[in-house]
Amino acid sequence: MKFVKNDQTAVFALGGLGEIGKNTYAVQFQDEIILIDAGIKFPEDELLGIDYVIPDYTYLVQNQDKIKGLFITHGHEDHIGGIPYLLREINVPIYAGKLAIGLLTNKLEEHGLLRTAKLNTIQEDDVIKFRKTAVSFFRTTHSIPDAFGVVVKTPPGNIVHTGDFKFDFTPVGEPADLAKMAEIGSEGVLALLSDSTNSEVPGFTKSERVVGQSIQDIFSRVDGRLIFATFASNIYRLQQVVEAAVKFNRKVAVFGRSMENNIKIGQELGYIHAPKGTFIDAHQINKMPAHEVVILCTGSQGEPMAALSRIANGTHRQIQIIPGDTVVFSSSPIPGNTISVSRTINKLYRAGADVIHGSLSDIHTSGHGSQDEMKLMLRLIRPKYFMPIHGEYRMLKEHTKLAQDCDIDPSNCFVMDNGDVLALGNDNASIAGKIPSGSVYVDGSGIGDIGNIVLRDRRILSEEGLVIVVVSINMKEFKIASGPDIISRGFVYMRESEDLIKEAQKLVSSHVEKIMERRTTQWSEIKNEITDTIAPFLFEKTKRRPMILPIIMEV
Amino acid sequence: MKFVKNDQTAVFALGGLGEIGKNTYAVQFQDEIILIDAGIKFPEDELLGIDYVIPDYTYLVQNQDKIKGLFITHGHEDHIGGIPYLLREINVPIYAGKLAIGLLTNKLEEHGLLRTAKLNTIQEDDVIKFRKTAVSFFRTTHSIPDAFGVVVKTPPGNIVHTGDFKFDFTPVGEPADLAKMAEIGSEGVLALLSDSTNSEVPGFTKSERVVGQSIQDIFSRVDGRLIFATFASNIYRLQQVVEAAVKFNRKVAVFGRSMENNIKIGQELGYIHAPKGTFIDAHQINKMPAHEVVILCTGSQGEPMAALSRIANGTHRQIQIIPGDTVVFSSSPIPGNTISVSRTINKLYRAGADVIHGSLSDIHTSGHGSQDEMKLMLRLIRPKYFMPIHGEYRMLKEHTKLAQDCDIDPSNCFVMDNGDVLALGNDNASIAGKIPSGSVYVDGSGIGDIGNIVLRDRRILSEEGLVIVVVSINMKEFKIASGPDIISRGFVYMRESEDLIKEAQKLVSSHVEKIMERRTTQWSEIKNEITDTIAPFLFEKTKRRPMILPIIMEV
Repeated sequence: MKFVKNDQTAVFALGGLGEIGKNTYAVQFQDEIILIDAGIKFPEDELLGIDYVIPDYTYLVQNQDKIKGLFITHGHEDHIGGIPYLLREINVPIYAGKLAIGLLTNKLEEHGLLRTAKLNTIQEDDVIKFRKTAVSFFRTTHSIPDAFGVVVKTPPGNIVHTGDFKFDFTPVGEPADLAKMAEIGSEGVLALLSDSTNSEVPGFTKSERVVGQSIQDIFSRVDGRLIFATFASNIYRLQQVVEAAVKFNRKVAVFGRSMENNIKIGQELGYIHAPKGTFIDAHQINKMPAHEVVILCTGSQGEPMAALSRIANGTHRQIQIIPGDTVVFSSSPIPGNTISVSRTINKLYRAGADVIHGSLSDIHTSGHGSQDEMKLMLRLIRPKYFMPIHGEYRMLKEHTKLAQDCDIDPSNCFVMDNGDVLALGNDNASIAGKIPSGSVYVDGSGIGDIGNIVLRDRRILSEEGLVIVVVSINMKEFKIASGPDIISRGFVYMRESEDLIKEAQKLVSSHVEKIMERRTTQWSEIKNEITDTIAPFLFEKTKRRPMILPIIMEV
Repeated sequence: MKFVKNDQTAVFALGGLGEIGKNTYAVQFQDEIILIDAGIKFPEDELLGIDYVIPDYTYLVQNQDKIKGLFITHGHEDHIGGIPYLLREINVPIYAGKLAIGLLTNKLEEHGLLRTAKLNTIQEDDVIKFRKTAVSFFRTTHSIPDAFGVVVKTPPGNIVHTGDFKFDFTPVGEPADLAKMAEIGSEGVLALLSDSTNSEVPGFTKSERVVGQSIQDIFSRVDGRLIFATFASNIYRLQQVVEAAVKFNRKVAVFGRSMENNIKIGQELGYIHAPKGTFIDAHQINKMPAHEVVILCTGSQGEPMAALSRIANGTHRQIQIIPGDTVVFSSSPIPGNTISVSRTINKLYRAGADVIHGSLSDIHTSGHGSQDEMKLMLRLIRPKYFMPIHGEYRMLKEHTKLAQDCDIDPSNCFVMDNGDVLALGNDNASIAGKIPSGSVYVDGSGIGDIGNIVLRDRRILSEEGLVIVVVSINMKEFKIASGPDIISRGFVYMRESEDLIKEAQKLVSSHVEKIMERRTTQWSEIKNEITDTIAPFLFEKTKRRPMILPIIMEV
């Protein structure tokens, strides 16, 4: 890396800085690159029709011979979802905890990449040694089992990456390894890269056990059928529902593909424990008394195709809402889903269900630590340099304030963008340059073939619609052979706008004839004339600016 | 009204039930209709390109001779925004408080309707009498001055409509008239229609005075320039900023058209008091020391064209962010705006400003009462029948729970939809029928010309784009005269997809030739053949389903 000195370690991100999602980080010392996570991002609304967003992997492809391995902190989509796209370009060895490997195996199979992938399951005490660098781990708590922080040992010093974390002192699974974190801190840490998701939230995040208590309260007081929606990947939550079901004598029926998958993987790997007979098949639920059933399903974010949305819409093949049903949203809507969640709740109420949701009912907790937990991490790790990761700019900024409260020198804090390279010597640090970074859009089977031009067109089409003017021209006689025909989509309802269309046709016709008299052979001239004629006419009549598409056929 | 008995009063809504917005209510006794509010709704995202949503006024147009007047509870858009559209169809007399009349005057002038509108300013003690009914008012507190509840006296009993309200015991303007509400209750109330917006929020809503204190705290501790964004219609908030500016020796510069308008109207009507010289012109701010300036501007919802968004983007003509600036969001994002607000905050931080926002800073309060205030209203008005209004279904439902807590019989509570007619006798009530109701979309100058077909097309275009196949056919010789040409927008970037397009062309060409051999004269047959050929081909190649538009020109 040309702008990093030979005795410096470079730290950079291809995703995850200034945004939530597509987390992809790298630590490079000379010719050894350690990758940490390869996530995907779900597109915001203005990326019309885009399915996923992944990082630009150019730098990694160009330096593939240096990459020692991809280390996965945990199995969430924003940390592993990019792997199939990365592997298509470079087949790097992957190291991950047991559950992440389980989830990844499924994913790679779907993409037809499992056979060639090099998957390695790590244990928390493993140390993976390379020639100049080494990677070790420490257990954290998060909303999915097997969450790890990563320590990359490099000659200038150790780099610590927290992954996603909270400090849950009463977790459902194993507690975070505080002793190991303290030890890592005592050995000396050059730089800490720490999760900033909840840096604007004061205090400590609620324990998963509190949610467990709320779940049991609900089970104890509800007489009718229970429909329980949550994130499929929150194995702890699923386990707590299963425990409550066993305690209160209900059977569990699972709906939604990802939920079924994760329950299966969770059981296979020993994260979900249930006495035999706890789970029942879909077709059995309608034969059982309502108070003996809990339905565990996807759709807590109001996703239109998920099980709960179909139940709410009355279009689910097996489940109809019946009076006495109670639906529990064990989740909080992520921004952008607020309205669809709200609609689902309205529909469930209308269908006759009672609905338990919202922040007041202790029925959900975040997987990310709040401000005091970030400070605890800072006090345990005691880094010299600090780089907030995972979050929008405002969150990164806020996190550096917390770091400074914990005695990190302001000039040692680096709020960076994707692509910025932090060069770290054992007593110096600076942003030394920039590598290619950016967003690549996945739409259908296309990766990166949709750019800003296509998106701009989609936006115009979505707001204003389209007007096509087709005219056949006899280029020998400079005469209109046929047309102009006007066709529109998304503009006005044509059948009710016949007069408007006829008037526009006449107008175009006379303008094209006039330009033909000049015996032009420039199609672009004719096309511009059509656009310049019809656009102002339509704006005057409708105050709308549809996309105008003139098509000329030569005959 | 055929399904309401002659001794019954009908109550119904054309908007505002099961939704937030386009509030439009009516009380009808025999041949007298009292309208309450005529609001507009801002479209949700899936109404692509739609500017506003108004109710279907069919019933009002058909019964226009019965309408005695339109009574306005307060001057917010979701209560007065529909008036220009209603007046275009029927010129009903309008009764409203002083501020609402002021705001309405501006609005009607823009629509060219001011000359013919029949505007009447009401005082809180006015009684407007008609032959069989009469209308009176009671003062409430809300986030805009001159907010009133409405009492419609009808032979079967009095109908009370709260408008939007909270009980702010320490308001900035005049307090709610509790005594009058109690008196109305004592006289006997047949039905209460009460605001449900915050029915899911426990307790009491924070007073506007608490916000005033936070504003003063910010003014007292910030040294640099202050940029203060809030809702332009929240005249109380504006007045509190002005008071703080005077107290802490800052001058106020106002940016954003609606903000300028409302400050002007607020001053003219005596709601905003400022010593001479408090307000300064835009061009003066850059000549003054930072600590002597506060900029009051629009854009607290992240609206892309508003002053604050342009400041954040660095595209504002007069204001650039300078280090030391503090931006205050005195607002909370309405669902659907969360992401755009968040983006604006990120940009302001990046530009070097400090930003104060969020629910933790007491810098904003709702204009709507919470659960305990709804109960207070119920205890004061003591209605026989109860109909929750203003809110999504879940909120209406929750509000009836509160009513039942306040001893309203569950069978006397009516959760209704727009168009449902509640028939009220002096000791009976039932939903007796339905009148036409629904949403009418305003797009540009078109009112109601965009329907579901156009919206469906816009949705497909926005997500998948469009592929046009044009072919000229010589119908005498059953031959392709020219083409097929393939043009796409919003599908793939054409220049990089030449092979795909060429292959598609060839495919269409061979299929059209084949169908021509059958000497068909059915264009629809040719069009279907083109679509059926190209759609599966493109899906196989791209996993996308663009809209296919076959165009045939006969030559």
